[in-house]
Parts: sequence; structure tokens; C-alpha cells
Amino acid sequence: MRITSTMAETRHLYGDAPVGLVPTMGFLHEGHVALLEAARAECGTVVMSVFVNPLQFNEVSDLEHYPRNLERDVELARDAGVDMVFAPSGEEMYPLPVATVVSVPSLAVRMEGPSRPGHFDGMATVVTKLLAGLQPDRAYFGRKDAQQLAIVRRLAVDLSLPTAIVPRPTMREPDGLALSSRNVFMTAEQRVSALALSHGLMEAADAAEAGERDARLLERLVWDVMAAAEGVDPEYAEVATVRDVAAVDELSADSFLAVAARVGPVRLIDNVHFEVDAGGIVADRGIPLERPSVLYSQDPQSAEGEHDAARS
Amino acid sequence: MRITSTMAETRHLYGDAPVGLVPTMGFLHEGHVALLEAARAECGTVVMSVFVNPLQFNEVSDLEHYPRNLERDVELARDAGVDMVFAPSGEEMYPLPVATVVSVPSLAVRMEGPSRPGHFDGMATVVTKLLAGLQPDRAYFGRKDAQQLAIVRRLAVDLSLPTAIVPRPTMREPDGLALSSRNVFMTAEQRVSALALSHGLMEAADAAEAGERDARLLERLVWDVMAAAEGVDPEYAEVATVRDVAAVDELSADSFLAVAARVGPVRLIDNVHFEVDAGGIVADRGIPLERPSVLYSQDPQSAEGEHDAARS
Repeated sequence: MRITSTMAETRHLYGDAPVGLVPTMGFLHEGHVALLEAARAECGTVVMSVFVNPLQFNEVSDLEHYPRNLERDVELARDAGVDMVFAPSGEEMYPLPVATVVSVPSLAVRMEGPSRPGHFDGMATVVTKLLAGLQPDRAYFGRKDAQQLAIVRRLAVDLSLPTAIVPRPTMREPDGLALSSRNVFMTAEQRVSALALSHGLMEAADAAEAGERDARLLERLVWDVMAAAEGVDPEYAEVATVRDVAAVDELSADSFLAVAARVGPVRLIDNVHFEVDAGGIVADRGIPLERPSVLYSQDPQSAEGEHDAARS
Repeated sequence: MRITSTMAETRHLYGDAPVGLVPTMGFLHEGHVALLEAARAECGTVVMSVFVNPLQFNEVSDLEHYPRNLERDVELARDAGVDMVFAPSGEEMYPLPVATVVSVPSLAVRMEGPSRPGHFDGMATVVTKLLAGLQPDRAYFGRKDAQQLAIVRRLAVDLSLPTAIVPRPTMREPDGLALSSRNVFMTAEQRVSALALSHGLMEAADAAEAGERDARLLERLVWDVMAAAEGVDPEYAEVATVRDVAAVDELSADSFLAVAARVGPVRLIDNVHFEVDAGGIVADRGIPLERPSVLYSQDPQSAEGEHDAARS
């Protein structure tokens, strides 16, 4: 496995096609590892990028405290059979102060948009840069960040980027909690309360697969489960189309039901995706790990509790 | 020479490297032909794109009346040795309604920005799409649209697009008037008045090459020449850096002095570029044709006087 720091060098070292990219901000957990394994199964060359993108942070202190452990990330990538880890410096990524903004405004107005001003623009800009500069044939994104995924899929089409965007299921703890590096900031009790998000979503998925098409009703279903749980403060429960992140009254196109809630010190997000076709609806509920996640509690930095608890 | 309508087909047909792209909105004049010839001299494969980009028009009627003559454009491209003309339909370029916007806001606030709201965003978005989708090694742009060129150069770096942006000198009539398809809308008398723009710029270029560094003084010099001319209504005369399109007090980095003025029914723009190094300043004043331009008055559509007189 090679560690590279420039895009040109990385492209120069590509082996067999297709080339698969897994973009990350480092500090991997089992969700990232699942993306690496999916890329390894489908691609001739697998590249993982590790770059903590300053553009998508609202606060300088968030950026400074973002947890990092490149050494461990490299080790995990090696174990997953990655061919190259592209870990650029800030200077390589931004030789000039960035003046260009890629935005997908209509897909960013709802859900996470209002809570995180500028976040999706920063994410869209760096993803465009990675795809345009590294030119992978495929790029792998988890469905956990459903709105991010929708935005990436849209900009790849709109800008004719040469990359197929491959969505992968959300990875979950054995009890259903979606993996997130912020899970470690919850107490054992809060951790139990947080199950209301996935439990509510699974109930909604059951209802949709059983024929329920009413978006308001599905939203209310999961909202009520969250609101009934001790210590859970729901923020939204919304159905939106994957193509436009637009509200719908009835499930009739590929869409997702996403939630956000505060639980103790953290803000959690989760979702289920609905694939809608003539035969009906199939929900992607994510994939539970066989054993509880160990990765994101391994590093002392992650236990400090000071870094961005508002991020996934 | 091949005519193609999809990006994938176009890339598939590339011959020898490097691949050079000349992006156009069609209705070629000698300025475009000079770009094609420059690409032909430097590239193994030359592609000309012809696409009237709806995103960069403020008014639907402008778009509808934009002059088109693909048959003649193809003939001129063939004469210039072009290998492929990429002439996509609107559906090929935008299979979905475009939700993504590429913008370079800090480079678009001055000069043409205020007069043409949304124009540079639309241009930046389609240029990003052409460069990301066609992946040329080089792309050729005229210095006539100096601010556009500055924006394209910046977004190519910021987004790590795989293309070197090649600036080419402005083509001029033998008497100095910068080529523009809107020149045909002026009377013979207005046409003479319009020479104030290029005359003023050449005086400023003389002064700069003779050692004048004071940006305000160079701006005033060309402004005064324009203001003194009968029938010329100057709009701006501004020096800006190529990198940031930022105002400067002294010429000390690569920069340009750009002007806009109304002359009769049309709004004209023109500029000189200054290359600044330790040895001093060299002005790129553009290249005069040996004989007056014939191309943009050849087509009956261009004589109708109804199409977008506000565009170059």
C-alpha cells in the first residue's frame, strides 16, 4: 500500500481499473471500513482519501479539535486491502485561498441545512475537487449521511463528473444504533434512549413495506417514538426524494425518511432509504454489526469529549 | 472531422494527446478561429464545443434570439483542422434540471458582475461541466473576456480540474477595435467612436511599458480618452489582478486594465493584460487582423439586430 500526497502522483500510481475512491475525513470506524470493503470487492484499484476539509466546518475550533489518527487509519486501510491512501496537506489541496464554491442550494434547504450553515457548500466543493482531480470510476458513500449523499449524486450528474456514486447501507450497532463517532459522548443511559431513533425508523420501514404510502403518517410515526423516549429531543422527521431532497405527500419515487434529535450532549441523525418500484417498496434499513463497534472508542483523543460533538 | 453529441462518445474518439478544447457558443468569428488555430498548433486532438448555455442568460428572449449557424461553424472548424465538434443537445447537457451552481463570488463582484447578474455563475457551471466531462488537457480562452478568463483560471485550480487553461490574445480589427459579434450593430459613425476604447487602452499600455505603475492614473488615462469621444458613454475603467480580480493601487502582479462603455445600441468591453516580472511590464495588446473581419457579418441572422446586443 502506498501513501500519497498529491493528486497527480495518486493518478500516476493507479493500477487496474475500475478505480474506486472512498473519501473520508479520517478517524475511521466500522462504517468506513465497510465502504473500503465494498470498494475492494468491486474495484481493481482502491484509494482512500483522508482530508479534514476546513471548508465544511463552521467554527475554527471544531476544525482544530476534529479527531485525527492517520497512523491507525492507514493500518485499517491496509487491513481492508486498500491500494493507496491519499492524505494531502492543506497546501496541496488549496494552493490558493479557495475562491470557488460548489453549491446545490435547492437540496440543502431542508433537514441538516438550517442547522449547519455553509456545511453542504464546503462538502460539495471538496467532493467536486476530489472527483475532478482523482477521476475515480466509482466513489463510495454511506447512506448514514443521506442528504450529503443526495447532494453528491446530484452534483456528479449536474457537473458531468466521471464518477459513478455508489451508495452503501448505514452500518449499525447490533442493537440498531447507527454508527457515529459521536456515540462515545453518550452515557450508558443516553445510549439506550438514543435507540428511539432507529426503533422509530424501523417501525416506519415496516409500515412502508406493508403498504403505507402517506409521508406525513410515516413521519409522525417515527417522531412519536422519539418524542416518547426519555431524554430524546427530536428536531425533525422528514421524508424527501433522493433526487431533489424535496418533500412528498406520498412515497412514489426513491426517497428517504430522515430524523435528527438531541440526546444528552450530542445531536444524532439517522434514516432509512426507500426504493420504490412497480413491485412495491423495499426499505434499506442498514446493516447491524455482529459485535459492538470497537474502533471509535479506541483512541484516547475520541474520549476527551471536547471535539465537535455536533458531527457524525 | 466528427460531430459528436455526448461527452462519453467524444472522449471515446480522442486521438493523440494532448487533447485541446475550444469551448464556444457557436456563431464563430475570427477570434474563435484564432483559438482553434492555436489549439491545432499545440494539440494532438482538437475539440470544439458548441453549446448555447441557457444558464448564463438572464433573459429567456436573449437565449432564444442568440444567433446560431452550426453548419457554418462546422465548416470553419473543418478549415481550421478541428478533429471533433461536440454539439450537444440541451437534454444531453442537462438530463435533470440543473441544481448545482459553481460560483467564484469574490472574482465576480466588480466590472461585468453588477451588469450581468447570474452570468458568471452560469458560465462557471457550464465550463466546470465541460472540463470535468470532456477532460481535455488544455482549454483555450480569449483574453477579450478578461474577467471570464480570470474566473475560469481560478476555478480550474480550486477544483483540481485536469485541464491547463491557455489564455490567447484578443483579436482586433486592423484599426484596433476588438472583435465582437455585436460590432455589426453599430453604424459607421458609431464604429469610429468605438475606437476610443482600444485607443485609450493602447495609450495606457504605452504608459505602463514606459514605467507607469499607478493604477488610478492608468484608469483615468483610458477613461478620459473614452469620455472625450463623441457618442461613447464609459461605464468603467479598472485595473485588477488576474488571480483575484481585485483592485490594486500599483501594478505589481499580473493584471489587466478593462473597460466597458456604451456606444449607440451596444455595450462594448475591451482590455489589455499586463505581465509583470522583475524585468518590467509587457502589455498584451491583442493581435490585429490583416484584413477587416468578414465572418460575423456573413450571416443574415446577425444583421437582424434583434439578438442579444448586450453580449460579446
